[in-house]
Amino acid sequence: MAHKYVYLFKEGNETMRELLGGKGANLAGMVNMGMPVPQGFTVSTEACTRYYDDGKVIAQEILDQIDAALAVTEEINEKKFGDPQNPLLVSVRSGARASMPGMMDTVLNLGLNDEVAAGMIAANPDPAFERFVYDSYRRFIQMFSDVVIGLSKHDFEHVIDKFKEEKGAKQDIDLSADDMKTLTAKFKALYKEQTGEDFPSDPKVQLIEAVKAVFRSWDNPRANVYRRMNEIPYSWGTAVNVQPMVYGNLNNNSGTGVAFTRDPATGKKALFGEYLINAQGEDVVAGVRTPSPIAQLEQDMPEVYAQFVEIANRLENHYKDMQDMEFTIENKKLYMLQTRNGKRTAAAALKIAVALVEEGMIDEDTAVLRVEPQQLDALLHPQFDSKALKAAKPIGSALPASPGAATGRVVFDAADAKAWAANGEKVILVRLETSPDDIEGMEAAQGILTVRGGMTSHAAVVARGMGTCCVSGCGDITMHAAEKYFTLGGKDYKEGDYISLDGSTGKIYGEAIPTVEATISGDFEKFMGWADAKRTLKVRTNADNPRDTIQAVKFGAEGIGLCRTEHMFFEGDRIKSIRKMIIAKDAEARKAALEELLPYQQGDFTAMYEALEGRPMTVRYLDPPLHEFVPTKKNEIEELAGELGVSYEELAAKIESLHESNPMMGHRGCRLAVTFPEIAEMQTTAVINAALAVNAAHPDYNIVPEIMIPLVGEVKELKFVKDIVVKTADALIAASGTDLHYKVGTMIEIPRAAVTADQIATEAEFFSFGTNDLTQMTFGFSRDDAGKFLDAYYEAKIFENDPFARLDQTGVGALVKMAAEKGKATRPDIKLGICGEHGGDPTSVKFCHSIGLDYVSCSPFRVPIARLAAAQAAIAGAK
Amino acid sequence: MAHKYVYLFKEGNETMRELLGGKGANLAGMVNMGMPVPQGFTVSTEACTRYYDDGKVIAQEILDQIDAALAVTEEINEKKFGDPQNPLLVSVRSGARASMPGMMDTVLNLGLNDEVAAGMIAANPDPAFERFVYDSYRRFIQMFSDVVIGLSKHDFEHVIDKFKEEKGAKQDIDLSADDMKTLTAKFKALYKEQTGEDFPSDPKVQLIEAVKAVFRSWDNPRANVYRRMNEIPYSWGTAVNVQPMVYGNLNNNSGTGVAFTRDPATGKKALFGEYLINAQGEDVVAGVRTPSPIAQLEQDMPEVYAQFVEIANRLENHYKDMQDMEFTIENKKLYMLQTRNGKRTAAAALKIAVALVEEGMIDEDTAVLRVEPQQLDALLHPQFDSKALKAAKPIGSALPASPGAATGRVVFDAADAKAWAANGEKVILVRLETSPDDIEGMEAAQGILTVRGGMTSHAAVVARGMGTCCVSGCGDITMHAAEKYFTLGGKDYKEGDYISLDGSTGKIYGEAIPTVEATISGDFEKFMGWADAKRTLKVRTNADNPRDTIQAVKFGAEGIGLCRTEHMFFEGDRIKSIRKMIIAKDAEARKAALEELLPYQQGDFTAMYEALEGRPMTVRYLDPPLHEFVPTKKNEIEELAGELGVSYEELAAKIESLHESNPMMGHRGCRLAVTFPEIAEMQTTAVINAALAVNAAHPDYNIVPEIMIPLVGEVKELKFVKDIVVKTADALIAASGTDLHYKVGTMIEIPRAAVTADQIATEAEFFSFGTNDLTQMTFGFSRDDAGKFLDAYYEAKIFENDPFARLDQTGVGALVKMAAEKGKATRPDIKLGICGEHGGDPTSVKFCHSIGLDYVSCSPFRVPIARLAAAQAAIAGAK
Repeated sequence: MAHKYVYLFKEGNETMRELLGGKGANLAGMVNMGMPVPQGFTVSTEACTRYYDDGKVIAQEILDQIDAALAVTEEINEKKFGDPQNPLLVSVRSGARASMPGMMDTVLNLGLNDEVAAGMIAANPDPAFERFVYDSYRRFIQMFSDVVIGLSKHDFEHVIDKFKEEKGAKQDIDLSADDMKTLTAKFKALYKEQTGEDFPSDPKVQLIEAVKAVFRSWDNPRANVYRRMNEIPYSWGTAVNVQPMVYGNLNNNSGTGVAFTRDPATGKKALFGEYLINAQGEDVVAGVRTPSPIAQLEQDMPEVYAQFVEIANRLENHYKDMQDMEFTIENKKLYMLQTRNGKRTAAAALKIAVALVEEGMIDEDTAVLRVEPQQLDALLHPQFDSKALKAAKPIGSALPASPGAATGRVVFDAADAKAWAANGEKVILVRLETSPDDIEGMEAAQGILTVRGGMTSHAAVVARGMGTCCVSGCGDITMHAAEKYFTLGGKDYKEGDYISLDGSTGKIYGEAIPTVEATISGDFEKFMGWADAKRTLKVRTNADNPRDTIQAVKFGAEGIGLCRTEHMFFEGDRIKSIRKMIIAKDAEARKAALEELLPYQQGDFTAMYEALEGRPMTVRYLDPPLHEFVPTKKNEIEELAGELGVSYEELAAKIESLHESNPMMGHRGCRLAVTFPEIAEMQTTAVINAALAVNAAHPDYNIVPEIMIPLVGEVKELKFVKDIVVKTADALIAASGTDLHYKVGTMIEIPRAAVTADQIATEAEFFSFGTNDLTQMTFGFSRDDAGKFLDAYYEAKIFENDPFARLDQTGVGALVKMAAEKGKATRPDIKLGICGEHGGDPTSVKFCHSIGLDYVSCSPFRVPIARLAAAQAAIAGAK
Repeated sequence: MAHKYVYLFKEGNETMRELLGGKGANLAGMVNMGMPVPQGFTVSTEACTRYYDDGKVIAQEILDQIDAALAVTEEINEKKFGDPQNPLLVSVRSGARASMPGMMDTVLNLGLNDEVAAGMIAANPDPAFERFVYDSYRRFIQMFSDVVIGLSKHDFEHVIDKFKEEKGAKQDIDLSADDMKTLTAKFKALYKEQTGEDFPSDPKVQLIEAVKAVFRSWDNPRANVYRRMNEIPYSWGTAVNVQPMVYGNLNNNSGTGVAFTRDPATGKKALFGEYLINAQGEDVVAGVRTPSPIAQLEQDMPEVYAQFVEIANRLENHYKDMQDMEFTIENKKLYMLQTRNGKRTAAAALKIAVALVEEGMIDEDTAVLRVEPQQLDALLHPQFDSKALKAAKPIGSALPASPGAATGRVVFDAADAKAWAANGEKVILVRLETSPDDIEGMEAAQGILTVRGGMTSHAAVVARGMGTCCVSGCGDITMHAAEKYFTLGGKDYKEGDYISLDGSTGKIYGEAIPTVEATISGDFEKFMGWADAKRTLKVRTNADNPRDTIQAVKFGAEGIGLCRTEHMFFEGDRIKSIRKMIIAKDAEARKAALEELLPYQQGDFTAMYEALEGRPMTVRYLDPPLHEFVPTKKNEIEELAGELGVSYEELAAKIESLHESNPMMGHRGCRLAVTFPEIAEMQTTAVINAALAVNAAHPDYNIVPEIMIPLVGEVKELKFVKDIVVKTADALIAASGTDLHYKVGTMIEIPRAAVTADQIATEAEFFSFGTNDLTQMTFGFSRDDAGKFLDAYYEAKIFENDPFARLDQTGVGALVKMAAEKGKATRPDIKLGICGEHGGDPTSVKFCHSIGLDYVSCSPFRVPIARLAAAQAAIAGAK
């Protein structure tokens, strides 16, 4: 038997989303429920995939099945395709597995030609109807020309405009039936002029071309971008729904509308929506006329309203979720054109999930699965006012480095940011790139915009920690910091000008856009409680200071998974001491400089242990190459030479000697501790002394320091550094006269560490997967440089998403899994976590759960997201 | 029962090298064969390992076993340790599994103290004997103080010199017995002065301290360096041999010598060696007196000579290899002190191996195993005259980038090198670093010395291809190229000064040292024939031009495993065309520039196919980041801008835009072909057209081009580029009207490629492991930067050798093995090779054989080495 590619609505059901797409499956579902749906058929997603596999051709067997389905559709609807006496007109719409609103193409009124139009008018010789027929016809020609053939919409709009001018008509409604007929003829002429061919009059040809066009639209650039943003695989393909047309614009007993069973903005339980009398769907969307609230329908057509309410309730009860429905009324008869689980704001998602549980419609597990983890971001950060945002046009875009929305006046340095903010101004700090010197200015700013730097640049990491909106790496900006303006998209933005940033999308706006503050409602706690009850994966945070730590704990962090000690070395005198250490000529001088750093570092750890109130903390030892701590500009070097009391030449030579061809793979991580063991000694002293002090003050905390050696690739390397740690720590503990347990573990961030994890686990008491670096080295490309070619990779569909944002499960993930298994084989009780950026990405969190990690660690504001993703993984895993 | 740590010589045998070390095992062997050996005992290598495991302490059970063995030794030799009447004196010598001549420590005459010395003299009251006793005693104190305690030898020498001055004695022999006694007292006083303690008079204390010292010497810096150079694992440890002393310096009926059963320089079959009457071993080594040839012994002591000849023959027949023996004659009685397989030159190794087969002593397989593959280097490259080399002192050292020895006059640029060479001068080209412009000068030079660049720098790669000696990366040099001199070790070397380079060791000499030309004897062909008959692994070469190709084929290369196409882009107008391509603003301009390159590239491939005469060639597509093709200096950019007809600003901006943070992991390899498919099109056209042309001219060649896509990390990436290749190639082949098969494969050089090799093999018809880059990315360190910390890693014994020279089997090798297995699982007939530097390293070649690769590819002059290593692996594998 031939494979089935085409399904009548009545042959499908709502569980067949993969095959029929969401729209097709739900249309089938409504038909099965006996609801008034114009019955047509769905060409399956498999047909789409086959279309591409066959080289963009629809196979004959599929064409045959479309023919057969069309014949049955004609029978059911008692109309005939192309029959002037009783014509069937159809809409042809895309419908993928996941909703991709507006991304793909639609053709309405398909089946019209001169004969059909004439036949329709002959059967109903009313001038208003005649106008309606030719209006529909000219719209069809325009839509088909645009969507199927790729002609420019504007050329058609231009014909209309010119014609209206000739006629002295201001609006479309000023045009008569005859005018519409003339326009139809003009459109056909334009079509012929541009294509060299007559507009196809055979409805079957129109249909097949429209189906192909929908298939093609799966691969259009905006669909590809949308899929990448929403993680919809290219391989899914789209289905095509062919449905008989009904007309809400037939007369004043007709209309069309959309409605939700609950308020999609707030989640409030009440029918919510709007409709327009005597209109088609596009009129509602176009916004030319103002629709009435759905309640008005009760006044206008009480019976239709009652029927609609009943259907809406049945649908919500059936799908057990808030429904988003499209309907049309034709001559007082209600038709349902679509239902789907409605998109909703984060606040509504929470409220609806909790309400559905309280109403007994779903259980808590289902509720937990109903909220997209990523959505929680919107609850934790300010967002743009949605209406104001609609009116705004971005002037550029870059990396969405830290989520949230911000609006404020441009300033170009940290001191100004601080000063202006102190005067009550909201400011956006715009910098080439940020450095640790900018911290206070970053804190004072609403948002941060940088010209250089990726998702793990200083600006990005610090902003995420603070929860401040940040857009990074906008290479399109030409910076004139000295003159206090920057240029973007051909326009200058001066100090004091308003701009707005969306850190969740990376968009930049050249104006003020009102923002709405983040609000966490009571439902949040209840909902997250359900999630926490289910999850087995622990969630820690990446934090380097008490402020971020306290924030993360508020968000439910169960400890610190990554404390990057180098971030502690930048403030005030510390940077001077570390620079002294770097230029030290021998171990003695190095030790002296480290002695200066010790009290700072110990103080930091003490404060963080206090903030954690007994929760665990993993401290990563010094990681970055030392050149990151020294200046490169001549005047800065001169100044520093003065401060440090060395000659400019000597200092410049030292700094030059720190230069590396590939610093990512250079003298950093534990390699620093191997060459300069004094560093590891100092850091151990700081960690252990801090833990001893805080344990003494709070005996119930029972702090067990976790010391993490970065960039290990070989067990002997870890052992070498661990020996220094143990020797230093044990001496301090012995001297203290108290008992303190501590653990020494390692980052797994180098491929060789993953491959030899069984050996490394003989020394490491825990592994933390540093998937940022592991991704770079496994793929062999540097995050800083990949921008040059990643776009080409997306275009060629070599990559469907950014491996730095979403863990690459096939390659990097395989290494993580291998290392986890090898580690456990050597040391069954080894603790396994992840502390790369991926620790806050829901899909990656689910992967971490599936391979049995103990915890993920992410930036403070991603902690709730990770908690929810972990819960969903546990629930899905249990099923 | 307690573990046995100490073996009497008569308890061991020559198969127990691992436990007793080479010296101990062979002493035991000679005892078993009834030869005259002073019988003592060996403290095993396990005792050494345990000594380190126990924290540098000799366990009591080992001390007890030493005591027991000493008691038996006293019995056998009928002497007693510390007994003035009949004292036993012993030597304490190291002896590792592998011979490490001069690397570890020895103490002679141990057991002497005041009473013993007095007792010996009382028993034999002869002034000459008395002098001998005190000379031995003072030597013992000096050696013990140096070796065991670590006092400075020079302080003792100073005491002697001062004493001789006082006495008016010119030479040691001018000192009387009394003088020696006085010196002994002075030495003991010096010992006490420096240590605060009396010199230990208890022979047992002396013995244990000496054993510990030998154990410690396993870890001394020179032993560590030697081990790393010779790949001797640190974990092996050394044994300690305690042997009764015999005295060649007792009188004129005594003597000592060393002899080989065949000439170690030429391999000629004849007893070869030298001896000294009335002398101890150190006298022979010290070179104060000139020894007589061994034949003289036949005149001096015919019976002893006959006995020695008989023993030498028995030993050679027993060990079936040339023996290197030490002997001492005490009062006309012969004692054997050591035998071992003798070190020999490459020429001798070949001659001996072939001769032993012809004499029926060993079979061909054994002969093949007898020559170290690395040794063949010496047959293929000029070497220094060994005597002249002994007298020379290096002025510096750097990376041994291309083997062989070279001597010549310093020149500082390629044009001078060419001009001077044309005048018959031998020159050494000294450069900061070389660039493709220098090719002709490099060809003209005897050797190349660079200040910058590693083992894979331009200079290194090109020099290895040419077989020219090269020492690279000598950062100690201060270059004054404009003034035509360089400074090294505080001394200036001007243009025209003689220097010499040893490309096998990396040493640099500030003088002319005569060299001996490479000579390949008839034995070479016969021997390599035996090797080839055994090996299953094919050996290809890395070559980018016909000259290297022809050389490699002469050395037995079976094809080209890696043709780096970028090397073809540097000469003359080509570099201009590639620069035009780089600055092209669109695909059209890029195509036009590539059109210019096409004839060059096609011509190169044609010439190489001709040179290969039907052997296969793997062509790697453009790999390096584009910035490698453009200048960075302002004046060069200005000049280029003029040539290309663009503004300086535009060109500078373009070049700036090519800058990358980590170019190793940047926009290179197949990423170039993804962003600029035109490059792959041009290269495919060149390869296919060349193959078509050469096949047409030589139908018997049946060329099957192998096209290799570099830096692949994901199968879709390979498929994308392969599609371009196939489309271009198929069109050309169809147009040619002939048939041509070709293969498309990939480098596996990115960890992700290894991890996903099963997927990649769906598209790749062959894998070539690029272990240079794979090592960098698997370890996460860049070769160019690793110099900053690798020394510390060697010192800390984290690494025992350079992973770029020797394939890291644990990590990188595991990935190679995994990829090979995954590749074969998907495509059982996939062809597997390796083309990294490791392809010419014997140990790595053996690994490649063991995991079932089909071929290795290496630089032309390493082809014979790889052939031999592959044969040895096959023979070892068959056993």
